[in-house]
Amino acid sequence: MSHLENLQNWLSTNGYQIGYISDFKNIQYYTGFSSDPVERTLALFVFADQEPFIFAPALEVEAVKEVGWKYPVYGYLDHEDPYEIIKAQVLQRNQHPVKWAIEKGNLNVSRFEQLQQKFPQAKFEGNLTPVIEQERLIKTPDEIEKLKIAGKWADFAFKVGFDALSTKRTEQDVVAEIEYALKKKGITHTSFDTIVQGGTNAAEPHGAPKTDLIQPNKLVLFDLGVIYQGYISDASRTVAFGEIDQKTKDIYQVCLEAQLTAQAAAKPGMKASQLDKIARDIIDKAGFGKYFIHRLGHGMGQSEHEFPSIMEGNDMELQPGMCFSIEPGIYIPGVAGVRIEDCVHVTADGVEPFTHTNKELQVLPVK
Amino acid sequence: MSHLENLQNWLSTNGYQIGYISDFKNIQYYTGFSSDPVERTLALFVFADQEPFIFAPALEVEAVKEVGWKYPVYGYLDHEDPYEIIKAQVLQRNQHPVKWAIEKGNLNVSRFEQLQQKFPQAKFEGNLTPVIEQERLIKTPDEIEKLKIAGKWADFAFKVGFDALSTKRTEQDVVAEIEYALKKKGITHTSFDTIVQGGTNAAEPHGAPKTDLIQPNKLVLFDLGVIYQGYISDASRTVAFGEIDQKTKDIYQVCLEAQLTAQAAAKPGMKASQLDKIARDIIDKAGFGKYFIHRLGHGMGQSEHEFPSIMEGNDMELQPGMCFSIEPGIYIPGVAGVRIEDCVHVTADGVEPFTHTNKELQVLPVK
Repeated sequence: MSHLENLQNWLSTNGYQIGYISDFKNIQYYTGFSSDPVERTLALFVFADQEPFIFAPALEVEAVKEVGWKYPVYGYLDHEDPYEIIKAQVLQRNQHPVKWAIEKGNLNVSRFEQLQQKFPQAKFEGNLTPVIEQERLIKTPDEIEKLKIAGKWADFAFKVGFDALSTKRTEQDVVAEIEYALKKKGITHTSFDTIVQGGTNAAEPHGAPKTDLIQPNKLVLFDLGVIYQGYISDASRTVAFGEIDQKTKDIYQVCLEAQLTAQAAAKPGMKASQLDKIARDIIDKAGFGKYFIHRLGHGMGQSEHEFPSIMEGNDMELQPGMCFSIEPGIYIPGVAGVRIEDCVHVTADGVEPFTHTNKELQVLPVK
Repeated sequence: MSHLENLQNWLSTNGYQIGYISDFKNIQYYTGFSSDPVERTLALFVFADQEPFIFAPALEVEAVKEVGWKYPVYGYLDHEDPYEIIKAQVLQRNQHPVKWAIEKGNLNVSRFEQLQQKFPQAKFEGNLTPVIEQERLIKTPDEIEKLKIAGKWADFAFKVGFDALSTKRTEQDVVAEIEYALKKKGITHTSFDTIVQGGTNAAEPHGAPKTDLIQPNKLVLFDLGVIYQGYISDASRTVAFGEIDQKTKDIYQVCLEAQLTAQAAAKPGMKASQLDKIARDIIDKAGFGKYFIHRLGHGMGQSEHEFPSIMEGNDMELQPGMCFSIEPGIYIPGVAGVRIEDCVHVTADGVEPFTHTNKELQVLPVK
């Protein structure tokens, strides 16, 4: 059964007449049409017992048809009131739409108020956000195939980045080399801003690449990923650019042990919080607990902000088809930053990573 | 008076006790701190008669302090309930916060419901979205300075792109060359996906660059911009790659006349809709009206999705300090696509463009 049929069934089973999808990533998931409308209105309306329709800026109508959407699509011009057109189309399908389900995690209060004005009798009690999150949680074989290909391009990007390390290049230069090589291969989008951080800059886990030259005999942290047919990769490696001191090596080994142990232990039936604890205990025991300041991982698929969240307090049980990152990090201000990350999908008895670049400490020649 | 003081005054004057800013671009505008929290919670709380505070993911707290934010910042960890911490901090400042103003154009329904649960007595009648849009509408001299620098980088990018045109390169290759050159100069972000479209591909105004080789004796459309210190540029040029036929030249000249005439006519006191009509009439009269399928322009500043919208039906009067695009386009499927665009700021008696690349038809040598 298609994703769209699942959603129609959910509406029908739960007594909703109409569902309004406003998150453009979810519109892509259900229709194959991918576009960020920014401040314009893009919407998918799904009915328990009628055909769905897409509502889009006039500029996008042709593009919707081109992806093979077989139901109606209606456009609006910039000076028209989108909700007036939506109202007319909804009423053509259902004269008394009372029971609505909306994406409460996406729809903003202004649009919600406009909807309430157009449909004053309606009750908007259904929340599609957790329903869609739940459906998107378990990836299909087709989705996993795309995630694997996105992972291969991340491995390619690591290779380009490692080769580009040079005392004559800045962190930003190395980013430029990675993204240029990807674009030349037809990979037009990274899944987030590529991170290359040398030396102590890597101790700032949310920092951006700087114009500092790459320093020899320090670690360099890479965190990167691409988008392939709407599915992402996301992986981190930390390499030594020349020989590094023993303390830095020790930090690396603790992070590596945490990553490898968690990845080997992950399997169906385990709670997300348990997996976080496996990695965290190793880092705690080595005395670096206070430097591991984020969750072990995040769900991923069409974005790096999906479920399950691998963190303390999340009792969700891992199931085959779930995809998430395993990315312990140790960030000691003024000393070093290490993060090692694979994203994985849960299989029948464990997990499989999407990226395969070596995780043992690589010491690259200074050049 | 600072932007933040203006907002405090607005709250006080309009009888609101507390304002909640949730749009990260607006948080940047008021605090100087720039970060997209994605699914995490980043918030600015402003009070009529108390000091403001920022609420951020724990990972971001240091970065908030580094930008020189002189008021409190509170962090939360991934497993904590952000709205519980927010509630405690709000109540420390005001035991009975009843009159709230929120960003209705940004806050989603889920977060709004959480807020309602934490503050069951509160009324959320104030809408900050139009207030902030209004304040952001008129740019300060400091903002205009940044927009000018962003414009210079767009001119640089055009030069790189024109030089990169070659029958051996695809549209995507030319994009790669432009973005690589920008990154090497330390310009890390474009303001949107760089567009390079050759021949009939340019007739699809929302299309993306393809893997088609650049064809000689056709037009090539460039639409690009960068982000400089949080402010963007956005400009389009269409050039001939070798000699082109007379019909294509005619289309170009009509679009150019529409652009130049509108840019020369724009001045304070004119309605946005009038400016749109000046360009549209020229294109209509030449018989291409049905191929100009979007508004004449959009406001811009921190993003290309601000006000004023230069379109039919918008009676907003232009005022000094407003910034927007003037971008007529003619898109004839299967024939050609032309768009010529400068973004401008309104001065005392006209407008000044942020980009200066030649707009007369440039015929570049085929190579």
